[in-house]
Amino acid sequence: MSVTELFEANNEISDADLQFTADGRLRHLLTLRGLNRQHITGLLDRAESFLSAPGEPAVRSQTLKYVTVGNLFFEPSTRTRASFELAAKRLSADVLNLDVNTSARKKGENILDTMHTLQAMQVDVFVVRDASAGVPAYIARNANDSVTILNAGEANVSHPTQGLLDLMTIRRHKGDFAGLIVAIVGDIAHSRVARSASEGLMTMGIAELRLISPEALAPEPDDFPGARVMHSLKEGLRGADVVMALRIQRERIGSLDGIPGVDEYFATFGINHERLKLAAPDAIVMHPGPMNRGIEIDSSVADGPASVIIDQVTNGVAVRMAVLEEVVRTMERK
Amino acid sequence: MSVTELFEANNEISDADLQFTADGRLRHLLTLRGLNRQHITGLLDRAESFLSAPGEPAVRSQTLKYVTVGNLFFEPSTRTRASFELAAKRLSADVLNLDVNTSARKKGENILDTMHTLQAMQVDVFVVRDASAGVPAYIARNANDSVTILNAGEANVSHPTQGLLDLMTIRRHKGDFAGLIVAIVGDIAHSRVARSASEGLMTMGIAELRLISPEALAPEPDDFPGARVMHSLKEGLRGADVVMALRIQRERIGSLDGIPGVDEYFATFGINHERLKLAAPDAIVMHPGPMNRGIEIDSSVADGPASVIIDQVTNGVAVRMAVLEEVVRTMERK
Amino acid sequence: MSVTELFEANNEISDADLQFTADGRLRHLLTLRGLNRQHITGLLDRAESFLSAPGEPAVRSQTLKYVTVGNLFFEPSTRTRASFELAAKRLSADVLNLDVNTSARKKGENILDTMHTLQAMQVDVFVVRDASAGVPAYIARNANDSVTILNAGEANVSHPTQGLLDLMTIRRHKGDFAGLIVAIVGDIAHSRVARSASEGLMTMGIAELRLISPEALAPEPDDFPGARVMHSLKEGLRGADVVMALRIQRERIGSLDGIPGVDEYFATFGINHERLKLAAPDAIVMHPGPMNRGIEIDSSVADGPASVIIDQVTNGVAVRMAVLEEVVRTMERK
Repeated sequence: MSVTELFEANNEISDADLQFTADGRLRHLLTLRGLNRQHITGLLDRAESFLSAPGEPAVRSQTLKYVTVGNLFFEPSTRTRASFELAAKRLSADVLNLDVNTSARKKGENILDTMHTLQAMQVDVFVVRDASAGVPAYIARNANDSVTILNAGEANVSHPTQGLLDLMTIRRHKGDFAGLIVAIVGDIAHSRVARSASEGLMTMGIAELRLISPEALAPEPDDFPGARVMHSLKEGLRGADVVMALRIQRERIGSLDGIPGVDEYFATFGINHERLKLAAPDAIVMHPGPMNRGIEIDSSVADGPASVIIDQVTNGVAVRMAVLEEVVRTMERK
Repeated sequence: MSVTELFEANNEISDADLQFTADGRLRHLLTLRGLNRQHITGLLDRAESFLSAPGEPAVRSQTLKYVTVGNLFFEPSTRTRASFELAAKRLSADVLNLDVNTSARKKGENILDTMHTLQAMQVDVFVVRDASAGVPAYIARNANDSVTILNAGEANVSHPTQGLLDLMTIRRHKGDFAGLIVAIVGDIAHSRVARSASEGLMTMGIAELRLISPEALAPEPDDFPGARVMHSLKEGLRGADVVMALRIQRERIGSLDGIPGVDEYFATFGINHERLKLAAPDAIVMHPGPMNRGIEIDSSVADGPASVIIDQVTNGVAVRMAVLEEVVRTMERK
Repeated sequence: MSVTELFEANNEISDADLQFTADGRLRHLLTLRGLNRQHITGLLDRAESFLSAPGEPAVRSQTLKYVTVGNLFFEPSTRTRASFELAAKRLSADVLNLDVNTSARKKGENILDTMHTLQAMQVDVFVVRDASAGVPAYIARNANDSVTILNAGEANVSHPTQGLLDLMTIRRHKGDFAGLIVAIVGDIAHSRVARSASEGLMTMGIAELRLISPEALAPEPDDFPGARVMHSLKEGLRGADVVMALRIQRERIGSLDGIPGVDEYFATFGINHERLKLAAPDAIVMHPGPMNRGIEIDSSVADGPASVIIDQVTNGVAVRMAVLEEVVRTMERK
């Protein structure tokens, strides 16, 4: 069963529908599927307002002053947790960090009981990260009316705030999505980052989406409707306006037939200065981090003029502020 | 030596006395022993004022605005730590989380030195959880005048804020304690929850307290003065107004002679829909959490109309706010 | 290569220079080297203003209200992390705790990428603790203009806020540094505490600095210019005004030729009541904590009238508030 099938199998209402109120306001953020161009544009516009000029202090507001945000991370993460924590604190929320590792769940802890417990403590926003598909939506289906769920990374299925920060970064550097060729390079099969970025990019209407990987790491045929699946980095980079390198899990390298070792991976799919010349002259290079320098990306590129990797991080906090603000407003208006 | 003997052996002044000032105000909260009916009633009344209507934001105040609360958890806990952290933050305290596992102490760290260090940093409230009996009182005996100690779970001896939240939950559902039959079911011998609830219930004057367990998990005869020790669940549930199921530690199941395995435990002492019919028609079912569904409680009961388990969690934050407020006021008036 | 050589080898501009702006204001705090007497006096004076009278609430201000402080601890620490966290919160900063253990770095995480990521999230102050020499300065050299780095413990090289709190404690008890004999006792070779205290004491102009240790734990000859290296505790204590016992790592005891076991260490270098009589009648005893009672210090001394160990902890928060305030002001004025 492919990831998409698994994902749909649990759902009567799709996650895409589940995340909206009857009148179309954002209630949870589980996936970028179902968010239309106008909605995404609105979120990115709002996120822009949370950026400050270089050297200026971070933008802050009182919007979430009486709101409690719980970071419910069943899978460890320093970077995403820090980004959500700062976004929430800069909106004046109370933040509760809960590092619940999956072993705790094996000890017999029921995920809904954990959720009901936090809900009963009046935690208002659940930022959920989990290694299993379907967990954020499962929680959203069972939550009460005064709680909102944000997906902070779900198996290889979805990472919608990462998708939004990628869109924001592209828009800030390219102005518009129309006509863009975007090349995503790496372990597409296992990448929630690729999935969410692709969903967003298709909605925004780019010209061409290329997914470049070794054969063994290519996606299932139906997972990325409209994308071109490719296995040659050179072909894939040719004329690309945006190049997104994905982190390859070290434990995956060389682990399966058809998956190359580190050196071979870098030789075949690593983005280096030379290869980048195949892309458009003003191409930008992205990476969700943390980078494996010398594996999926060379330092000459990561630190070079085309790199917008640091902007992605800054935009990540801004996008999360915009999302937090929007779902909390939906909840309060209900 | 029984737990109670151990507990008393260390103490010249009893914990019950230690926790009051000369004029009877609450200075620390170490145990429910020694808190009289009027005092408990006052705390529960105050806790009620920290509840908000469904859908309304959590109640907040500035009462602890210049106070630092340190969560000193020598034994890990997600739930109780989160409850105290939210209670403190909603009263505007600064919160410092310190997860000090017991191995750190084995490395030669002296618990009084840790306490003196935090006290010197002007941590005002110590929320202490520890697997050894006597630790919260030991800290309280050695603390200076500007510090207050709250017991957040102590061996199998005491968990007073859990006891208060249990009382609050019963009072909200039953109105009064007079005439109530309360049945606590499970591993009584090792339960700090049972001990604190029992102490509180006896003070509030219920009609009958039943402690129901396998023989091997029954309490020492003198540990629960006035309670009926029983070994038949059916007899114990008959006519009960309140049924409290205790969590059984999985590592304890089947570990000793006379302690049944999981299936046998559920068959003999698990609370299910059928058995609950033996209780009073309007009986409520409680559980301190986290639940082992299918062992000490069946999901039909945990999620059924008699369950007040979620209310317990909500009341837990409110009770901790009331306790924090009261001990800080005592400290400030000194 | 000695520690000092290693330390210098990486640096074109010395750390001492790196930490100042062109016009001499404190930009980072990496080491006490390079801070002159006037500068240190100013910091200690400011720290005094953050002390409150016994029983009074901790001093708070709004100085860091729009500042984010990140605790980037690559080496675990409860005490120093808590001290910095409280200092930052009492100045109204947002605090982000990041416990990044060194294994994460082994997984291929590049320390500069971690730093650039947090910088991009507009973390303004990096409190860095690391087991490797040179890390705080390395980060400072690569940070952008709106970020400031505070060294919270670096290998056996430097721990400047500890040095400042030691100076503050001595000044509060002795009034002036002129004429003082200071004896530091223990594992001098591996002690960042001894290094930073010594640098500060030499700058403030004490009469004599004695470093007393077993031969195997003596410093390299050039590491402590101006100090007397000694191996007899009795001689070293004679007439001392200040006695500072260092924590000896248990894993180091008895591990090398010439390093005594626990009992022998205590017999030869442990500070006890009897030996302390050799020091000046009004000598004070210090220890950076956590103490190994019965190894480097006897409880009769640790808890005796000469001990100022608890004052050190209180002064630590005050000194960190002063340092945070000063570096943030430098940053804002730029």
